[in-house]
Amino acid sequence: MSSTQKGYRVAILGATGLVGRTMLDVLEERKFPVSEIVPLASSRSRGKEIVFDGRTFVTREPSKEVFAEVDIALFSAGAGASHEWARIAAEAGAVVIDNSSAFRMDPDVPLVVPEVNPEAIFDEDGRPEMIIANPNCSTIQMVVVLKPLHDRYRLRRVVVSTYQSVTGKGKAGRDALEAELAGTVPESFTHVHQIAFNAIPHIDVFQENGYTKEELKMVNETRKIMGDDSLSVSPTTVRIPVYGGHGESLNIEFEEDFSVDDVRELLSKAPGVIVQDNPSANLYPMPLSSYEKDEVFVGRIRRDLWHPKTLNMWVVADNLRKGAATNAVQIAEQLIGRL
Amino acid sequence: MSSTQKGYRVAILGATGLVGRTMLDVLEERKFPVSEIVPLASSRSRGKEIVFDGRTFVTREPSKEVFAEVDIALFSAGAGASHEWARIAAEAGAVVIDNSSAFRMDPDVPLVVPEVNPEAIFDEDGRPEMIIANPNCSTIQMVVVLKPLHDRYRLRRVVVSTYQSVTGKGKAGRDALEAELAGTVPESFTHVHQIAFNAIPHIDVFQENGYTKEELKMVNETRKIMGDDSLSVSPTTVRIPVYGGHGESLNIEFEEDFSVDDVRELLSKAPGVIVQDNPSANLYPMPLSSYEKDEVFVGRIRRDLWHPKTLNMWVVADNLRKGAATNAVQIAEQLIGRL
Repeated sequence: MSSTQKGYRVAILGATGLVGRTMLDVLEERKFPVSEIVPLASSRSRGKEIVFDGRTFVTREPSKEVFAEVDIALFSAGAGASHEWARIAAEAGAVVIDNSSAFRMDPDVPLVVPEVNPEAIFDEDGRPEMIIANPNCSTIQMVVVLKPLHDRYRLRRVVVSTYQSVTGKGKAGRDALEAELAGTVPESFTHVHQIAFNAIPHIDVFQENGYTKEELKMVNETRKIMGDDSLSVSPTTVRIPVYGGHGESLNIEFEEDFSVDDVRELLSKAPGVIVQDNPSANLYPMPLSSYEKDEVFVGRIRRDLWHPKTLNMWVVADNLRKGAATNAVQIAEQLIGRL
Repeated sequence: MSSTQKGYRVAILGATGLVGRTMLDVLEERKFPVSEIVPLASSRSRGKEIVFDGRTFVTREPSKEVFAEVDIALFSAGAGASHEWARIAAEAGAVVIDNSSAFRMDPDVPLVVPEVNPEAIFDEDGRPEMIIANPNCSTIQMVVVLKPLHDRYRLRRVVVSTYQSVTGKGKAGRDALEAELAGTVPESFTHVHQIAFNAIPHIDVFQENGYTKEELKMVNETRKIMGDDSLSVSPTTVRIPVYGGHGESLNIEFEEDFSVDDVRELLSKAPGVIVQDNPSANLYPMPLSSYEKDEVFVGRIRRDLWHPKTLNMWVVADNLRKGAATNAVQIAEQLIGRL
């Protein structure tokens, strides 16, 4: 569109899902210039009404023709739907921002966290790539805090253990916890085992090497986003019965030494990061206090007691927001005036 | 007592608490030779009846005279009560096994995990020490798996993140979660913040260096139990809304290289350890499946993807059992025939 138009036509594939609905909230809150919302959904949800900024839009079926009518298409309907529709949408002229894992490791598709590598959104001629991948939630919140530290001290190695919200499995993940807490015994467990009162070290599918796909996403996506294939990430991902966000315990070894005060200062100025680090006031990031926030929260910043040039910290972000919807909308914001 | 007696007179200080009651269960289940239980409790709980092995005992007030009547005194009423009574009990002739933090780092008091350093229970003349400290729950389950690995490969460094059950704060910790889930808004939060649906990186009191006491216990107690002041433990401890046990994500660097198969084999033969490591069958340790079990469960055993001689694993144990009551009773079992 030209900059004289009032706004962009934005399609949302998976508009009735938890991430899709959060995308609508974030577009509205951040006053993204929208002229029209085109909600798209699986046959089950078609005909449903979506209210955006006081206007009602009816959920439609995805098609080449529909994508030809829009400027930007936010995809959050799983890797299968993305494989089916992303190239069709892109060929029809919509810039696709895909929240699924379908294209993340595709060498022709940029994987973008706007605080880290916004330049990857555009080709060398300054035109936007037609398919842009949104990283995995656990990866996004980690790279937002690692990036400014890497630029200053050079990362050598990261050991990360995650504490992931049930909403990582969408509405079904949240409903499963609520049903279990209400005493309902399901036919099969959404989180493989009972998640109420439990911690399950199993997110996504196990691979030959003993790691899960979720863990390998944190390894491979981090390298791609940071543009550094020497980064060494050692992950353990665990589902716990929380809402509001994912927690991550990070042990980070650098090439260069640091002072904890400098790290705190650096992070407090880093884009998208809020430092919450005042133990004496019981202030540190938590899933509940990160709920519906767009930033990444970091605290418990302290030097490793024994290992040189090494830092411990605790990072939390709302996995539906910065871990998914907000990051996708931030990518869309980079496109304003450049479509 | 002489070996001709039917059993030992066992006092339990804090008999009405969650750990105290678990001690009674464990003594009964493991058929510890008990001639008499002497339940002791704070004034609030005095006169309460305790049933053990079909017999009823009435809770009494601790006193020098009471301790003079018993052979073994299991303490689990907090550090204050231990400071008040442990030396009096020992002087009265009872061997005190203390579950509080009161004496753990006292150089004159052994800190014992029977799978690791049972020899520390006795002095050089083979007589039992009169006060024996039971380690912190998070430490116990970690050292049980670290010990056989240290003996074979020599530990260089451990990075550990914990996923700790609300029962680490006893009955009050469990009741707080239940009340929060039922919608009750408390006057003050037992876990500092709401624990329902949350993860709180704050267990015990913060110290000057930014670590909590819980974290420093894992550092200092591990060194004392393993008898190696060069061990480097880097801990982050987190409370989560689970029952049944504490989880720990461990990244362990060794001096010597290993094969994962050898590690699995070694741990499967280690005392007190059960390997649950079959991802293709969705088998790995979890708090719920560790509930009321006396062993330490280990799984997700896999090589660090990048760092040499380094292993990731996931360890769970019932914090009220192996993390407290069972370990204390196991220490008492070492005393059989030696009092």
